[in-house]
Amino acid sequence: MSIIVVKIDSATLTTPEKIEQISERLIQQKNGGNQIVAVVPPIENLEDKLLQYSQILADNSSIREQHALTALNAQAACSLLAMSIEKKGIKAVSLNGWQAGIEVIKSNQNVLIQGIDQGHIMEHLADDKLVIVAGSQGIDRNRNILLMGEGGPETTAVAIGAAINAEQVEILTIQDGIYTADPSVVKQARKLNQMTYDEMLELSNLGSTYIHPRAVELAKIVEMPLVVRSSTENHAGTLIKGEVDMEKNLIVRGIAYEADIIRLTVGYDSYEQSSLADIFTTLAEHQIDVDIIVQAVIDGVKPTISFSIAKEDFAEAIKVLEKNKARLMFSFADFEVGLAKVSIVGAGMVSNPGVAARMFDRLRKENILVKMVSTSEIKVSVVVPQDEMVRAANVLHDEFNLVEILA
Amino acid sequence: MSIIVVKIDSATLTTPEKIEQISERLIQQKNGGNQIVAVVPPIENLEDKLLQYSQILADNSSIREQHALTALNAQAACSLLAMSIEKKGIKAVSLNGWQAGIEVIKSNQNVLIQGIDQGHIMEHLADDKLVIVAGSQGIDRNRNILLMGEGGPETTAVAIGAAINAEQVEILTIQDGIYTADPSVVKQARKLNQMTYDEMLELSNLGSTYIHPRAVELAKIVEMPLVVRSSTENHAGTLIKGEVDMEKNLIVRGIAYEADIIRLTVGYDSYEQSSLADIFTTLAEHQIDVDIIVQAVIDGVKPTISFSIAKEDFAEAIKVLEKNKARLMFSFADFEVGLAKVSIVGAGMVSNPGVAARMFDRLRKENILVKMVSTSEIKVSVVVPQDEMVRAANVLHDEFNLVEILA
Repeated sequence: MSIIVVKIDSATLTTPEKIEQISERLIQQKNGGNQIVAVVPPIENLEDKLLQYSQILADNSSIREQHALTALNAQAACSLLAMSIEKKGIKAVSLNGWQAGIEVIKSNQNVLIQGIDQGHIMEHLADDKLVIVAGSQGIDRNRNILLMGEGGPETTAVAIGAAINAEQVEILTIQDGIYTADPSVVKQARKLNQMTYDEMLELSNLGSTYIHPRAVELAKIVEMPLVVRSSTENHAGTLIKGEVDMEKNLIVRGIAYEADIIRLTVGYDSYEQSSLADIFTTLAEHQIDVDIIVQAVIDGVKPTISFSIAKEDFAEAIKVLEKNKARLMFSFADFEVGLAKVSIVGAGMVSNPGVAARMFDRLRKENILVKMVSTSEIKVSVVVPQDEMVRAANVLHDEFNLVEILA
Repeated sequence: MSIIVVKIDSATLTTPEKIEQISERLIQQKNGGNQIVAVVPPIENLEDKLLQYSQILADNSSIREQHALTALNAQAACSLLAMSIEKKGIKAVSLNGWQAGIEVIKSNQNVLIQGIDQGHIMEHLADDKLVIVAGSQGIDRNRNILLMGEGGPETTAVAIGAAINAEQVEILTIQDGIYTADPSVVKQARKLNQMTYDEMLELSNLGSTYIHPRAVELAKIVEMPLVVRSSTENHAGTLIKGEVDMEKNLIVRGIAYEADIIRLTVGYDSYEQSSLADIFTTLAEHQIDVDIIVQAVIDGVKPTISFSIAKEDFAEAIKVLEKNKARLMFSFADFEVGLAKVSIVGAGMVSNPGVAARMFDRLRKENILVKMVSTSEIKVSVVVPQDEMVRAANVLHDEFNLVEILA
């Protein structure tokens, strides 16, 4: 009998009716001959009053208590789901992070899973129970409850899967799998049967929100197959694993995009004054995430550094640059708003050097201006005017024949 | 430095403003030179949505999950209180039952405290923190979260007090102490400075709702002094301990009463047929609480058994009697509604045999009909017509000079 870990989508926990549906689904999976461990995120609409109270009562000093308080919500979701399953005559048990043996450790600002004492979950599985675990939480050595932050529920699911030797981890979402592009933007987008961890990492980092990169990274390390599939429909979904069969030799396997990009440029009077290290260390110290970086030369002697940042970091970035202008020794700063990033992703690109050229060529033919470029082994990103973003995604989808993928 | 355990009243946790006030109070107590452990009940108005969901999703099979879910509320209250204290610059920590080392065991339908691993609380106290513990919850050997039921928060406070060798346990309530009678009914009621555990036990069993008898029982066993005092005012309250100085030699020290009592009577044709054991075992099996029991004889040969029950058990009691009439062999059943119980309580009564007589005498002079009588070493209860209840409480308050207690 195989163990399957299923990460529930919080959108399917908002009403008793939806919880009933999810419990039916889990029971069906169990009756299909598997042992099931469900990993549960918070119920969003339950948090209102607690959050409202804590905003009045607390200041920033109570990090521990904020974690303890927020952790209750996923615990509530677990109990409600377990109740609903038991009502249908199937044995179930809800486990908080500490009851499931999840040990975490705080490293800088991050809470990381340090280990999972798998005996607790295994014991309940051996007792023929459907096990429901509160995602994104664990305890440290001093029994403090800590939350894992963004991507915590998926990461918990993968870590549990690894600890109890599950066959696969299923990530339930509102979509029935990973598409070559967002179907709401690219009409011809097709669902992928399979993809590699690396492809998924590039796609999730590039604004596809199915699954957090942190969980994909962990799955890659522990070689845990992931299946992204629909919460409500019983479709096969997309299997994410180490290596996949190239479908029809397609090199590019997904298009991602991200709106509201801003390009900042700083210029120097001479090379001696410019320092990539100084400027990006300063920005990092202020928690400003920089994405694409381009170093260029104007007039042969005056260097510039351009980089893209998200809209919400813009005001802070300008402030930081202003304040440190003397130390950083740049002579001018400039910016451009109204930009977007469009990326092509595919594990096969590493051995196909012409892919980026083909991308630029098509965009040029379509008169879409490329403002910045960034490449990795399995993706190429371009920054384009935001009002061209959707068209760019569509023409690239066409250019690389993604419609032909037999998903 | 002494340790004081303070049990918070749930009425003082309903709004952020009230939580702020309680945190101020605890900080003042701490600044007064004590180590403070606060024991926190659930916030009533937070439970609405969870309860609503669980009523839809669950049936009676999910006892474990009902406990797990309900436990979250007191945990939320703890975190909010801890946050509020930390915001004021005082170190605080919230502890769920398991974090505080509270081990419980299920015995029949009851959840009992089996032990408290006091190291956890002591460690935080040593770290100069104000410790906030979720009341009424603990874990069993298999890490299941269990709730203690009625009186749980007070009982938790007493058990913690014993485990960490506290100087006293304070029970915060809406009143500023224990009164000789309910001040809303007996105008001349006075606050008691001190009383014994036994007196409090009789009073709490008799309908005074300041503190659950279970907590008083435990306090008596472990000899933990209790102080019942106001949540909002800084009055001294009432100290409950093993022995008290008799104030002005007053024998009766409190009047309690309880409305909506029903008297049931069953009659037998002969002694051979009547069995106290049979009838009360049958009622107990159906969870019907019987209070006063009187066995009488009519016509020298036909015995009757009368007993008082609460209004809410009446329908069920009649049903049980009807159904078991043949087996129980009674020839008729009768009942009387519209009754109330009035009791006088005082540890000194044990050595004063005339007290009950004095009570009956005064009630007779006042033309208050006594329907049933029950006595213990430190109390006498009478069942009277309900419309005479308030007058009976007042005349007995007068008869035993309770107004003269210098509280």
